[in-house]
Amino acid sequence: MSAAKPRLSVRDLLHPRSVAVFGASEDRGKFGGRILHYLASHGFPGRIVPINPRRATIAGLPCHPGIEAAGGPIDLAILAVPAGAILSSITACAAAGVGACVIVSTGFAEAGEEGARVQADLQAISRRTGMRIVGPNCMGLINTHHRLALSSSLVLDVPELPRGPIGLISQSGALMVAIFDRARDAGVGFSTCVSLGNQADVEICDILEYMIDDPATDAICMYIEGLRDGLRFQALARRARDRGKPVFAVKTGRTAAGVRAARSHTASLAGSYRAFAAVCREAGVVLMDDADAMVLAAAMRVRFGPARAGGIGVFSPSGGGAGIGVDRVTEAGLEVAVLGEATRARLRELLLPPQADNPIDLGGRLAPDVPGTAAAIMAVFAADPGVGTVFVPLTTTPRYEAASREIGEALLAAGKPFVIAVMPGGAADGVRAALRAIGCPFTDRIDDAIRILVHHAEQGRLAAPAAGAPRRPDGLPDPAALAPRLAAGALAEHEVKAILADYGIPVAREAFAADVEAAVAAARAIGFPVVLKAVARALVHKSDIGAVRLGLADEAAVRAAWAAIARALGQALPGARLEGCLVAEMVRAGDELILGLKRDDQFGPMILAGFGGTEVELDPDTALAPAPIGAEAALRLLRGLRRFPLLEGWRGRRPADLAAIVDAVVRLSWLGADAGGALAELDINPLILRAGDGRPVAVDARAATRGPGAAAAEPPPP
Amino acid sequence: MSAAKPRLSVRDLLHPRSVAVFGASEDRGKFGGRILHYLASHGFPGRIVPINPRRATIAGLPCHPGIEAAGGPIDLAILAVPAGAILSSITACAAAGVGACVIVSTGFAEAGEEGARVQADLQAISRRTGMRIVGPNCMGLINTHHRLALSSSLVLDVPELPRGPIGLISQSGALMVAIFDRARDAGVGFSTCVSLGNQADVEICDILEYMIDDPATDAICMYIEGLRDGLRFQALARRARDRGKPVFAVKTGRTAAGVRAARSHTASLAGSYRAFAAVCREAGVVLMDDADAMVLAAAMRVRFGPARAGGIGVFSPSGGGAGIGVDRVTEAGLEVAVLGEATRARLRELLLPPQADNPIDLGGRLAPDVPGTAAAIMAVFAADPGVGTVFVPLTTTPRYEAASREIGEALLAAGKPFVIAVMPGGAADGVRAALRAIGCPFTDRIDDAIRILVHHAEQGRLAAPAAGAPRRPDGLPDPAALAPRLAAGALAEHEVKAILADYGIPVAREAFAADVEAAVAAARAIGFPVVLKAVARALVHKSDIGAVRLGLADEAAVRAAWAAIARALGQALPGARLEGCLVAEMVRAGDELILGLKRDDQFGPMILAGFGGTEVELDPDTALAPAPIGAEAALRLLRGLRRFPLLEGWRGRRPADLAAIVDAVVRLSWLGADAGGALAELDINPLILRAGDGRPVAVDARAATRGPGAAAAEPPPP
Repeated sequence: MSAAKPRLSVRDLLHPRSVAVFGASEDRGKFGGRILHYLASHGFPGRIVPINPRRATIAGLPCHPGIEAAGGPIDLAILAVPAGAILSSITACAAAGVGACVIVSTGFAEAGEEGARVQADLQAISRRTGMRIVGPNCMGLINTHHRLALSSSLVLDVPELPRGPIGLISQSGALMVAIFDRARDAGVGFSTCVSLGNQADVEICDILEYMIDDPATDAICMYIEGLRDGLRFQALARRARDRGKPVFAVKTGRTAAGVRAARSHTASLAGSYRAFAAVCREAGVVLMDDADAMVLAAAMRVRFGPARAGGIGVFSPSGGGAGIGVDRVTEAGLEVAVLGEATRARLRELLLPPQADNPIDLGGRLAPDVPGTAAAIMAVFAADPGVGTVFVPLTTTPRYEAASREIGEALLAAGKPFVIAVMPGGAADGVRAALRAIGCPFTDRIDDAIRILVHHAEQGRLAAPAAGAPRRPDGLPDPAALAPRLAAGALAEHEVKAILADYGIPVAREAFAADVEAAVAAARAIGFPVVLKAVARALVHKSDIGAVRLGLADEAAVRAAWAAIARALGQALPGARLEGCLVAEMVRAGDELILGLKRDDQFGPMILAGFGGTEVELDPDTALAPAPIGAEAALRLLRGLRRFPLLEGWRGRRPADLAAIVDAVVRLSWLGADAGGALAELDINPLILRAGDGRPVAVDARAATRGPGAAAAEPPPP
Repeated sequence: MSAAKPRLSVRDLLHPRSVAVFGASEDRGKFGGRILHYLASHGFPGRIVPINPRRATIAGLPCHPGIEAAGGPIDLAILAVPAGAILSSITACAAAGVGACVIVSTGFAEAGEEGARVQADLQAISRRTGMRIVGPNCMGLINTHHRLALSSSLVLDVPELPRGPIGLISQSGALMVAIFDRARDAGVGFSTCVSLGNQADVEICDILEYMIDDPATDAICMYIEGLRDGLRFQALARRARDRGKPVFAVKTGRTAAGVRAARSHTASLAGSYRAFAAVCREAGVVLMDDADAMVLAAAMRVRFGPARAGGIGVFSPSGGGAGIGVDRVTEAGLEVAVLGEATRARLRELLLPPQADNPIDLGGRLAPDVPGTAAAIMAVFAADPGVGTVFVPLTTTPRYEAASREIGEALLAAGKPFVIAVMPGGAADGVRAALRAIGCPFTDRIDDAIRILVHHAEQGRLAAPAAGAPRRPDGLPDPAALAPRLAAGALAEHEVKAILADYGIPVAREAFAADVEAAVAAARAIGFPVVLKAVARALVHKSDIGAVRLGLADEAAVRAAWAAIARALGQALPGARLEGCLVAEMVRAGDELILGLKRDDQFGPMILAGFGGTEVELDPDTALAPAPIGAEAALRLLRGLRRFPLLEGWRGRRPADLAAIVDAVVRLSWLGADAGGALAELDINPLILRAGDGRPVAVDARAATRGPGAAAAEPPPP
């Protein structure tokens, strides 16, 4: 059955002309009571329709026994009725022509099988009728510009909705309201906040798409537990990047334990966090680990744009604040601003010699502490071209509120990006109010300030995205030729290498030998010394069990090694069949890399590159990107490795052949894209950099296919 | 001139019978006005003596024109007079028999040379008369048990001083009051808080010593910029550990930029942070990077003792909070609790199936949300033996205050360590008040909660300190024999190695050759292949310029290498003299370690151990400890390395000879202790682990001496 046309666009859903409240009440101890109260008290300009069979009027509004009696049109209905009663209410809404239902109730897919069945029924109604559903298991939505406060949460118990440029999408309702509240404390406002819960119908990407186009939203913040459609997310994130609208995200399920928690919570497919992070990096989404800091970072980005050149200038009323500020900035890998001599000379007229440099300790001012002193010093300091961003750990100081206001005003006047961290607790509430009053942003903790500074600097450093899709390198085989080679099931090492060689990835000279005589002949052809490696499909970590023998200098050594391998295999995996051995050239090894492909359930093929060898699991130094990838992005990927300088020649070492490594990464990524769903994963480990010329050569490779019929929709090239 | 006996002990200084306030006023816009007000309003039980020549009474108290007119005895005077006027006031105090002066004024050593001279004069008065000085450049002190609130800071503007078990020592006054205020917000109280500023007389260790003995202080928190006496700190920290009184510290100057900031701020010698951290680790001091979290961690430790066995149980009113909680716990390297089957069975009677496990999402409860539901679930959950500590990300929930109080009460009743993080901002102020009212601790941020959990777990994991001092290994040379060998100035590589060999550290077989013929002869004696290495005092990184030649298989190769080394040295360092070459056995290399000694200005000799080779600077994996060190502590040091598993045999590798490595670390640490101040640093890099038997052998070593007369006081063995 094809789906009915949606009754409302997302835009209309967020700008309803009328809202029905199920279970409306004057008792604010009840869901429906709070919802009605907040909706009315924040001045919703449309029609408010209380639904309650036991009342004729509520809060002066005519009340209806059911939605069918309310008279249309009803754009939106909000329901917090028990899960057991939801189906009849939703059916009635659909029949009454309601445009969309916001279902706050819990007890659906997140609650187990029975709830999942009810949720499926809700989805069926939505698809059949076109009535949209937000939730279930959500906390409603807020559109400050439409004065729409549609939630039962006590965080709406404020005199005025905080309007501002930030759009917030949150799967978790509890986090949406916590984020909203913290941001309001910090003077940050929102255009629209939507909590999505189980995403039975309206999903994260629907709201993301709306916000990309919404002129009232200048930056988008997302709290994600799981995506319904990874590829749609990727495409929308790229669209936001191309439109210059910054997107920030926090995702739970970063860890295996978190994945389990997220799955049960809003019944989401959490997917691989590493793949998600790689997609975000590629699409320019700023990925953070704290939702409150995310909103502050977005507000900073909207206010100041991406970070500029220059380091961090630290300015504090106290030496303690200055010292902590500099330590934390430096530990976070940020650059501390170096002031020019002219600035330092001017500062020496205002501050004691030891304080007349970055960091500034205002306690060292020469003039008496009168209005204007702090502002004058800040003006000189912030104007230095070496100062890209100012960081103010705002400890107590005499005339605390007045001095803080002056500092805030001076920062706003200077026009450079800045972050203020208010250090005391309740004793600084007056300072917070003073800063909010002049429209000066601040954070409440050093941790958040540092996060914001780090992510702001990152946005400044982000290379411009590659123009258009990556180009398919010349000489790659026809993609259609790959499927049959992968369809056969498990691949032996030499079969994997044959595919790699066809894609132009350098592979060690080697031959498969089914018996020891063939091995001796192959060794003579390749030239001694050689390597002998067991071929047995059950065997993954060959070197662990002694099934790889290196440096075999002559025929006798080859024969002895063959016998030893057969013995080792028999001991380690009784019953496993030694199908033969690979005889390979002995590559004189420099560094060892690992290249790999891994198919992500949400985002399709991902390419991995990094330092390899047997230590890769102990001390990983690898990076991931969605495949296929172009040469420029591949180089960026490699540059992100901790040990990258080794490849450029470190302390007199010979540099590796970086162009050849980049080429191998690009070609392998196309192999991943061509393989589609048929390839689960492929590892080249190690990709040895030859000791002589630093050229890469694959000496060990393995692959896991997904068998016939595993192919699925692939992401479009970026 | 010998110092006079101090007029007051630190204990008496913190329990004065009388306090004089210079510049006392009724105007709370002035320092003296606020000080007087807070002192009186918090009910100081002793005599309060306002000093002000222009008034006869202030706030109903008789006022005196000067300290000499006040009538004795005056235990304490507090002064916020300008730096220019301080000397006469202090002189008057000393003459009037004042026990101690707390100097809030700034403009002393932190302000430059002129201020340093005035500070020196203050110190001279203190030494001559025995009058103690706290500060200058401090923010006063607080002793809640004595109702002594002696500061001008607005954070004292509270109805009651927060009494509690935490002692706080802060060099920075601004941070002391910010920490005090944040802790109070979180319901944590203090015994005594002291800010020390420039430590002209009373220094950190004086207060530390007092607090170790103070029965009202159960844990000590320190904010340190620089120590006046590193060895005294080390000895006191060990004493606190032996008494079972936990010590927590945050230190600025963790980074080079921070060091500069701290130096100018309170004119401290900041010293090496790494050495400080190593000393803290050895002495059981918990080192943190955030002062507010430090106090919360101390409060948790006092309440619950060290962490117990078991993982972290995460419990939240919402799935979003549970997911974030689990992610952050896992990312921090903490173990997520695994519940027993009996617990899970009981939880399934209370929660929907997906929520009936760790993490708990209270939103999935089966019973209606009535009083007692949350408590019942918490009781079952917290009782599981797999749950060592409970972590509650406290998002909003219906009946927020009531439900939070029930959760708090259930946690207190369960008796296990727990951390609550209140997630919303101002909207949760009622929750905070409710928790404070039942004496339930909480934090205000996930970041702090995670820090506290990490440090609490660390304390549980800390091995018991080695009993007594480390034993000097047998067969070490007479310490007195070392001095003359180091006194000669710069040492050549073979001279360093000779010392190492005398200390029983394995050194590669090698010989010094002054010319090429000697080199050939030495190579024959050692056996081919050999290594040839330049000896030239100006040369530090030999391999970088091609002054090391490996794998020389015969005489011709040795001759060619000699010529090549001479050429390379001439090109890299024109004018440098090739004194000769070392001819060394070619060690078949497994992993490469680095061992080193470094003399810290504050703590004396430190031993360093880690993974080495030319990559050590690119991707460091090293650890530091104060020397000398015993075998048990040396093994613990090695176990702390990221790549330690390589030494135990990783993925089928041959294990290293760990006992021999430990022995080399111990012996080198004794060399460092014996060398005293004469040795600035010594590096063995690499210490190669032989490919065959995994035994360590020093193949390259260098040392920097400090020349004659550099010997200084050494730390006593621990």
